[in-house]
Amino acid sequence: MSPDDVDGLLARTRFSDEGLVPAIAQQWDTREVLMMAWMSRETMRETLETGRAVYYSRSRQERWAKGDTSGHTQSVHEVHLDCDGDTVLLLVDQQGGACHTGDLTCFDADAIVLTIEGDS
Amino acid sequence: MSPDDVDGLLARTRFSDEGLVPAIAQQWDTREVLMMAWMSRETMRETLETGRAVYYSRSRQERWAKGDTSGHTQSVHEVHLDCDGDTVLLLVDQQGGACHTGDLTCFDADAIVLTIEGDS
Repeated sequence: MSPDDVDGLLARTRFSDEGLVPAIAQQWDTREVLMMAWMSRETMRETLETGRAVYYSRSRQERWAKGDTSGHTQSVHEVHLDCDGDTVLLLVDQQGGACHTGDLTCFDADAIVLTIEGDS
Repeated sequence: MSPDDVDGLLARTRFSDEGLVPAIAQQWDTREVLMMAWMSRETMRETLETGRAVYYSRSRQERWAKGDTSGHTQSVHEVHLDCDGDTVLLLVDQQGGACHTGDLTCFDADAIVLTIEGDS
């Protein structure tokens, strides 16, 4: 993408008072939601410019290039900004498991199915 | 689900200092990510107990029963908590568009496709 596109998307993104925006990573082909993490303006720019997902670790208070330790990188295919500009959706190609536990997604381990009246 | 299940899931959820947790709503069959919003402990409990998505509006600082105004409610099929308990994923059946703009999802209007070297 062109530098203008990067600047435009960043200008439309509403970062929090902490300077962060939540980013949802979704596997582009299976559409599984893999994880949710945070991006600073700088790591969002790096993601857009390099095509590799780079987040900001709130616990470590530092740039977090996904996969640097695990090898489980994310190639970014598409970046969507939501209607009020305060959430990012990334369509990615995940290498290996997205979760530090080894699971494919961070949402695999703790799930509850609701029984809804009227459903069969 | 049983009251014990509700209490257990709420006990495992890590709410922010503001008392909120981000909740991603995904259409259960097409797997489209519809929106991201926030839940308080009370509205997450209501969601789990009633099977209808109820959020907390940060801008209005009040309970927000999705669809009360628009009719565009969400029936909740599954609730997933992520590996560190600080993000919720809802698999829902969306009535009408999820977005207040009329779009099916809040991520439809502002999307950028990255050209990734090596992709064909």
